[in-house]
Amino acid sequence: MTQPQSVGVVTPQRLRFTEPLALRSGGRLDEYELVYETYGELNAARSNAVLVCHALSGSHHVAGHYADAPNNIGWWDNLVGPGKPLDTRKFFVIGVNNLGGCYGSTGPASVNPATGQPYGAEFPFVSVEDWVESQARLADALGIERFAAIVGGSLGGMQALSWTLLYPDRVGHAVVIAASPKLSAENIAFNEVARQAILTDPDFHGGNFYAHGVVPERGLKLARMVGHITYLSDDAMAEKFGRSLRHGKQVFSYDVEFEIESYLRYQGKKFAGYFDANTYLLTTKALDYFDPAFEHAGNLNAALAAAQADFLVVSFTTDWRFPPERSREIVSALMHNRRHVSYAEVECAAGHDSFLLDDAQYHGVLSAYFDRIEVR
Amino acid sequence: MTQPQSVGVVTPQRLRFTEPLALRSGGRLDEYELVYETYGELNAARSNAVLVCHALSGSHHVAGHYADAPNNIGWWDNLVGPGKPLDTRKFFVIGVNNLGGCYGSTGPASVNPATGQPYGAEFPFVSVEDWVESQARLADALGIERFAAIVGGSLGGMQALSWTLLYPDRVGHAVVIAASPKLSAENIAFNEVARQAILTDPDFHGGNFYAHGVVPERGLKLARMVGHITYLSDDAMAEKFGRSLRHGKQVFSYDVEFEIESYLRYQGKKFAGYFDANTYLLTTKALDYFDPAFEHAGNLNAALAAAQADFLVVSFTTDWRFPPERSREIVSALMHNRRHVSYAEVECAAGHDSFLLDDAQYHGVLSAYFDRIEVR
Repeated sequence: MTQPQSVGVVTPQRLRFTEPLALRSGGRLDEYELVYETYGELNAARSNAVLVCHALSGSHHVAGHYADAPNNIGWWDNLVGPGKPLDTRKFFVIGVNNLGGCYGSTGPASVNPATGQPYGAEFPFVSVEDWVESQARLADALGIERFAAIVGGSLGGMQALSWTLLYPDRVGHAVVIAASPKLSAENIAFNEVARQAILTDPDFHGGNFYAHGVVPERGLKLARMVGHITYLSDDAMAEKFGRSLRHGKQVFSYDVEFEIESYLRYQGKKFAGYFDANTYLLTTKALDYFDPAFEHAGNLNAALAAAQADFLVVSFTTDWRFPPERSREIVSALMHNRRHVSYAEVECAAGHDSFLLDDAQYHGVLSAYFDRIEVR
Repeated sequence: MTQPQSVGVVTPQRLRFTEPLALRSGGRLDEYELVYETYGELNAARSNAVLVCHALSGSHHVAGHYADAPNNIGWWDNLVGPGKPLDTRKFFVIGVNNLGGCYGSTGPASVNPATGQPYGAEFPFVSVEDWVESQARLADALGIERFAAIVGGSLGGMQALSWTLLYPDRVGHAVVIAASPKLSAENIAFNEVARQAILTDPDFHGGNFYAHGVVPERGLKLARMVGHITYLSDDAMAEKFGRSLRHGKQVFSYDVEFEIESYLRYQGKKFAGYFDANTYLLTTKALDYFDPAFEHAGNLNAALAAAQADFLVVSFTTDWRFPPERSREIVSALMHNRRHVSYAEVECAAGHDSFLLDDAQYHGVLSAYFDRIEVR
């Protein structure tokens, strides 16, 4: 067994699309750009491509690092590379920043050609299905008719699932990790708190903060803090922070006192320094709206009837955001439709964020699954 | 069996205390007032008094209504009254607004005699133990040497527990409902998000918003919204709101779309209209700090060794804020100390808020317990 390696230095690429994209919201983008990265080599048969879909705060930068920023390592670098579960000696892996994002693809901070100003609040609502559509166009441009696999965690898993419904004959395998067939009322509630934090921040300026030279930092920070709580398990938080006091004793102040406060404030502040508030809003709405059964009167069996891919569905025992029950709903509906489904419920203490971690059982499952995918 | 009745019209009372109160935080109140209500009659032996301690947003107004506000019904009216589980034909029940509150007892919005201005940020941190101390002085003033019972849910349950440790011989029975011996890291994390929402609201003005004629409404609203999510169970939210759409279809807007959004915004806005932001901050800190085992090197058995009361501990299966495990920690430590403990784990779908509801099993347990308390 060879030692897993990094894909090394990578370079983002950019494609411009000029065919208008009609969106589920009724909106439309006349033209747009997608930023993406690729790892490994597309084989002659163009049959070894794997698309990695990102979650709320992810990007196209899935693996490797940049020549001028060696510490900027891809968010799923532990998964993708030579000798890693998603082995780039076998697969041609693609990461793409979703439309509406803030890492280079056309989004709210991009200049609206119609006005010469940043889109801001004018950027149309984008849905999981719109992302799939734009990713399909990217695949067309790269000459990929059919993906060996499409993989994603959380919101990324929803995109993988959606792909199998919108383009059943273009997906060999779908790997749907820590996802859900739709958000619960509680999930929506947390998203709504995050949105209200941003929308009511005076520095948000109705979404057109770019023109004011400010960002709604307070709102974004709060949004990230509340999000972060839902990404971790109660146990993981207890183990990592417990009730540890920064100063070893109670100091009676609103400054950081418990270590968990320090962690959340740090995460929130950091996030507010680089993430776009409008992207956050748009992405939480895409999450809320995702519900393939909606047009089938809530019948998930009917909704997933279109899928032709083989599936690997993975959940984590301590994930209370999208708990195993939600993954099992997907599995059950796929089984009902006689799809080939593998399902793994991984015991990992880290909660929803487990999908990003290098857990032995989890990566073992992924390795075994990717290994058996035939690429000819 | 007689039909349960309301205690009817009630009138808040007020007592002024001029003996300085030294607080755990090192702060001190030279004088203060407590607002309270009583229901039923104190018997000749002064042996039938029950103290009801309130939680984060509660008050002294536990039961009945006001002559000039018939719709302003006490927050635990379903529990307290003639023929109700806490029967006012047998017991003399007292509700008191805690120090630092915003319902009439001395708090951050009160005038600081030293400055002639509202205390605002100058109001000292108050702890569960400080509340117990002030409640003991109220009991002294009312001629109550020993309570037949002290009862509370959530933060109120923590006060009941604390009473048994600080004044073991003044509590006959402690009824500790939906409480915890200390907050978890996740509990603290949610409180911290709420606090940051308030502290970073530009209208907070460092706690001295009174002088500016504003209230940090956005921050308070967010704090209440995030709090509310933790008070309900995932299932209760699903049953009550599900993914119901306000307009029956997706409208692609940041206005209210899902019913759960409408509910949370309404609750948040209403709360921000009457609750004091400084009280919210102080109370969440009192919650965070509560940890009777802290001075016993984390040993809860040792911490609860002082208790002499009999106990009823109640938890709710769907309470994920203070889940049954946390109540069982209290039960276990009391059993270790050979206390008389009854424990009920009630199947109620409503989550943490179950303690406020008129659930048959829950109220049955309380009725049976209060019925067997001897009052002579």
